[in-house]
Amino acid sequence: MIRWNNDYNRGAHPAILQAMAETNGNSYPGYGLDEWCERASAEIKKYLNNDHAEIHFMLSGTQVNYTVIAAALRPYQGVISASTGHINVHETGAVENTGHRIHAVPGKDGKLTAEKIAAEAEKYRSSDIQEHITQPKMVFLSFPSEYGTIYSRQELQDIRNVCDTYGLYLYIDGARMGYGLGSDTCDVTLADIAGFADAFYIGGTKCGALFGEAVVLLHEDLKDHFRSYIKQNGAMLAKGWLLGLQFHTLFKDGLYFEITRHASQAAMKIRAAFEARQIPFYFESSTNQQFVILTDSQMEQIGKNHIFEYEQKLDSGQHVVRFCTSWSTRDEDVDVLVSDIQGLP
Amino acid sequence: MIRWNNDYNRGAHPAILQAMAETNGNSYPGYGLDEWCERASAEIKKYLNNDHAEIHFMLSGTQVNYTVIAAALRPYQGVISASTGHINVHETGAVENTGHRIHAVPGKDGKLTAEKIAAEAEKYRSSDIQEHITQPKMVFLSFPSEYGTIYSRQELQDIRNVCDTYGLYLYIDGARMGYGLGSDTCDVTLADIAGFADAFYIGGTKCGALFGEAVVLLHEDLKDHFRSYIKQNGAMLAKGWLLGLQFHTLFKDGLYFEITRHASQAAMKIRAAFEARQIPFYFESSTNQQFVILTDSQMEQIGKNHIFEYEQKLDSGQHVVRFCTSWSTRDEDVDVLVSDIQGLP
Amino acid sequence: MIRWNNDYNRGAHPAILQAMAETNGNSYPGYGLDEWCERASAEIKKYLNNDHAEIHFMLSGTQVNYTVIAAALRPYQGVISASTGHINVHETGAVENTGHRIHAVPGKDGKLTAEKIAAEAEKYRSSDIQEHITQPKMVFLSFPSEYGTIYSRQELQDIRNVCDTYGLYLYIDGARMGYGLGSDTCDVTLADIAGFADAFYIGGTKCGALFGEAVVLLHEDLKDHFRSYIKQNGAMLAKGWLLGLQFHTLFKDGLYFEITRHASQAAMKIRAAFEARQIPFYFESSTNQQFVILTDSQMEQIGKNHIFEYEQKLDSGQHVVRFCTSWSTRDEDVDVLVSDIQGLP
Amino acid sequence: MIRWNNDYNRGAHPAILQAMAETNGNSYPGYGLDEWCERASAEIKKYLNNDHAEIHFMLSGTQVNYTVIAAALRPYQGVISASTGHINVHETGAVENTGHRIHAVPGKDGKLTAEKIAAEAEKYRSSDIQEHITQPKMVFLSFPSEYGTIYSRQELQDIRNVCDTYGLYLYIDGARMGYGLGSDTCDVTLADIAGFADAFYIGGTKCGALFGEAVVLLHEDLKDHFRSYIKQNGAMLAKGWLLGLQFHTLFKDGLYFEITRHASQAAMKIRAAFEARQIPFYFESSTNQQFVILTDSQMEQIGKNHIFEYEQKLDSGQHVVRFCTSWSTRDEDVDVLVSDIQGLP
Repeated sequence: MIRWNNDYNRGAHPAILQAMAETNGNSYPGYGLDEWCERASAEIKKYLNNDHAEIHFMLSGTQVNYTVIAAALRPYQGVISASTGHINVHETGAVENTGHRIHAVPGKDGKLTAEKIAAEAEKYRSSDIQEHITQPKMVFLSFPSEYGTIYSRQELQDIRNVCDTYGLYLYIDGARMGYGLGSDTCDVTLADIAGFADAFYIGGTKCGALFGEAVVLLHEDLKDHFRSYIKQNGAMLAKGWLLGLQFHTLFKDGLYFEITRHASQAAMKIRAAFEARQIPFYFESSTNQQFVILTDSQMEQIGKNHIFEYEQKLDSGQHVVRFCTSWSTRDEDVDVLVSDIQGLP
Repeated sequence: MIRWNNDYNRGAHPAILQAMAETNGNSYPGYGLDEWCERASAEIKKYLNNDHAEIHFMLSGTQVNYTVIAAALRPYQGVISASTGHINVHETGAVENTGHRIHAVPGKDGKLTAEKIAAEAEKYRSSDIQEHITQPKMVFLSFPSEYGTIYSRQELQDIRNVCDTYGLYLYIDGARMGYGLGSDTCDVTLADIAGFADAFYIGGTKCGALFGEAVVLLHEDLKDHFRSYIKQNGAMLAKGWLLGLQFHTLFKDGLYFEITRHASQAAMKIRAAFEARQIPFYFESSTNQQFVILTDSQMEQIGKNHIFEYEQKLDSGQHVVRFCTSWSTRDEDVDVLVSDIQGLP
Repeated sequence: MIRWNNDYNRGAHPAILQAMAETNGNSYPGYGLDEWCERASAEIKKYLNNDHAEIHFMLSGTQVNYTVIAAALRPYQGVISASTGHINVHETGAVENTGHRIHAVPGKDGKLTAEKIAAEAEKYRSSDIQEHITQPKMVFLSFPSEYGTIYSRQELQDIRNVCDTYGLYLYIDGARMGYGLGSDTCDVTLADIAGFADAFYIGGTKCGALFGEAVVLLHEDLKDHFRSYIKQNGAMLAKGWLLGLQFHTLFKDGLYFEITRHASQAAMKIRAAFEARQIPFYFESSTNQQFVILTDSQMEQIGKNHIFEYEQKLDSGQHVVRFCTSWSTRDEDVDVLVSDIQGLP
Repeated sequence: MIRWNNDYNRGAHPAILQAMAETNGNSYPGYGLDEWCERASAEIKKYLNNDHAEIHFMLSGTQVNYTVIAAALRPYQGVISASTGHINVHETGAVENTGHRIHAVPGKDGKLTAEKIAAEAEKYRSSDIQEHITQPKMVFLSFPSEYGTIYSRQELQDIRNVCDTYGLYLYIDGARMGYGLGSDTCDVTLADIAGFADAFYIGGTKCGALFGEAVVLLHEDLKDHFRSYIKQNGAMLAKGWLLGLQFHTLFKDGLYFEITRHASQAAMKIRAAFEARQIPFYFESSTNQQFVILTDSQMEQIGKNHIFEYEQKLDSGQHVVRFCTSWSTRDEDVDVLVSDIQGLP
């Protein structure tokens, strides 16, 4: 059985394990105040085109999301998210647990639009009973989205403009950042992301690391005492250099981009196979997640060799399922899957 | 320079890196629902003498502490801790951030006493204005304590009795559990701990793992939806098998006990050297942390080859400093330190 | 100018001020542990047909709502509300501020339906990733709703059945309870409400009192330490007897029902006048709130003598506005309004 | 039986009930946006000597305390209080419930000292692990203290200086402000308080009002969106003019100062009687609360006609009890008490 159900089902890129083995006997200062975190920050900054970025390494996406939000918002403020956004659907109310409201607005293929954001912000600005409602103060979006779709440069610019108009922070969840940047349809770079966002993170867990996310803080307000928030939220790793070491390995020679681009290309091969077989897509994704609509018999057939993620049953009786590639996807496994797709009833 | 400043300044026991390398190409289910977590639980349970224990793997001590406390307490309830307890002094108010009050009571050499716990619980029970005060509902203690001291079986039994009398949960922070159990003066086993506590954790980060803590839940109330708390508190590792794999490695053949015992013995050699040199101790510790009182010149002298942790300056002008051994302490480094102690002015 | 903009724009029924004056020189125990709270509870219980109800007096609706919710839910649990529910739109995120998620579902004319509740609860029950999502554990509804609509006995029974099926608490916000019970179309009694709900409150602020709400707890779980929650949430009035005294006055001879019925009847007169003038309603309300759709010129005309609440502008260019009657509405003012409605262009 | 157990056991000064009766038929805008709140603010400001003060009316002391603290602090910040401070002992963990740590330091007769505050603030400033500890950012003190003691102008100046040095907000709980200002030993005015504090409140509940506290915000940071905090914390009264009306009545002709001075003088008569009888005091209070140490037989004897508050049993077997006067204390009751004290065994 080959696992395509998610992009975090294998350990780490071998270069990372090797780096860990090589440094295993060394002793380091704790809590992220070590040379590897410093060097990893320096490597990442080369891609940001921003001298003032502050980089912290944390452990998991949920943790980053609610910690950034808790650090950014005052108790009467909330965060705008697509109703399908990860913070709104799959983090067990972690944001609300920090005391903040999520202003969920309808998205389009998993993406927020500048219009919806503006409408939600305007609702507050034009209210004459502001003290009775929460103030949207931050925009949360994922690049790519939960459904593998990505924002174009123009879409990000439009959203940034709305944020400027309404005084909103723009925060980008980049759990799958590499797969977005590695897509053929992507017209933004990491430097562009850093130009648009007030804060974002570069996902490691799903993109080649054993674990870890690199949080990039750009707006001055968000940098204030951020290490206190990291510690308070249980996100300060004692052996912090393990995070720095991984990101250093991924960024020093562009390995991060190479392995995620490979995954996005593998996804395109799989996508092409489904297209050739005239199997419809539930979302038009150009990244490592592909959502297809299968019949009962197709699902059964493909399930003989492959593990995928079941999403939902449609009214038609058909099924939406997800196939993910990742940095660890093997060419030979792609070939098997493509061949099995071609043989679908 | 040799680091003795803490017990988390090197990677992991080589057996752990090896296990990671061996399994790196395998794919696993996520979020701790994998075979390694299951197997690690089974290995740990062999030491617990308790068929109903439920084991979860989390990432860091602070995270475990506030998550267990948030899961256990209702909003009007608080947790009793020694005023020197880790949750009260070094977790950036993480417990208060979950909404709960810490009932800090004076400890003795870092340890809580049954008497102080009973007094605090009695204050609530006998109050005729209970609705105006928080109810202590849990006891937090560390084994060993922040100062390396350990509780005897009798002390734990006395505390357990108070907990039973007042309906308090007993929760034990075992970040350095191995070093306590590995001490020559320790008269309890892991099974004893499991017999006394309602919940505790077995520290991995400081005891041979790259990272990770094994949380053992014993009281039924504390097991309820605990995975929801883990996720909500950002503590659910996507690649959860990495935690199971590490604890499996540490517990399957008793490696955990072997390497921590070794560290405690190394600490005793260092302790003996200080004693021989008639250098006073600030706490009487039989575990891997040794707190000694040095003069200016002694501190300067020993600082030439060794990094230790500075604790505080005493009114006498002398200094309290901490030397830690760990699973990664090398015999040759101990020899250097002992020799340097012998040569102190 | 006559105010119809809300139902809390005048002091209290004269009988309440008189009771306060009569007892002003007496001294009482504090914090609600006085004879008036006891007597008021006894009077209210006569209407509940439930010997085990526990009654507490609090100060305002928002306060009651979030306090009951905070007392009822565990951190990973949330509350189902119509998206138009007061807790979801007009309480400045008070529920989220206690750490809990609101599961907002579409309502119908401001009301929740059993179907929508069941669907939301089923989503959790049937999920295979429950630890990643919040558990809906309570249903919040208002009787009458924000739009003046009321639930029929059958609708409440259906909702109760869903709550039983899924283990949900049913909590009813009764800020305008009297106006609902006083409606000609209402087929439930206070005893019925007490039979369906696990907790509810009887609004005083909008129904004749200077201020105050009577919280009725029925489910045993919700009674546990409720006074601790009241105090913790700043809702324990030092001079608690002022609340008991008011509710005693309102309930000892049925004054509460008399004055709210009068208000609902006044609203029907106003409604009839709008109907006669063929002015459309935005919601079909049989209680003290009437939402009508006016043209620009109608709004200008009626605004010469009357203050009403502006709700929203429709795409048609017309306006939704609200007229409220209350316990303090004077017959002569109703006559003026009716006459002015008849004269509308 | 005459009640001396607290200072909130009777309704309101008759002038307040009269004002309520006179305005009862009028209709007003809700939520504190009315003429009475405005007029009351204007009257209070006459005493403040500060054109920029912003005044809000809230319902109870606990509510004010935690709302101000929640509005002022970021999640990693805490508030310094005497360990005997009201927020630390009698508010059911309301401050912790907002997520903030109380830095409890030993007081002296219920009062904080500049030295203790400076020591606590310095501990943070000089720490090299700041991210592991909470930052004290606010000082909480009560004027008078829980034990009736008051701060001199010099003491307040010293505390203010420490606050300036360390960037701390100074917040003063004035639940019994009137009794402090009305004391013969008091050398500060309301304007002085407004000069020293960043925020404080003037207690109404214990000083002549039915209920209500006037919150005075002086520091710009604390004014930001304060009405949002009021609403979010359930402290926004629908009929807000009831609060304004009461404070207008108390301040327009100095009634507040007159009735509280009277109470403090009555307390001095009682104090003199205890002194004459050589009964010792547990605290040296010059305000309306008197703490005396009674024997068993004295307590029994005085308990025949008087209700007082029991505080604690001393090791000596004697008892600390509290006698409170208030704005509602009658001269004839004072005479009875004085006479009964004279007759004590």
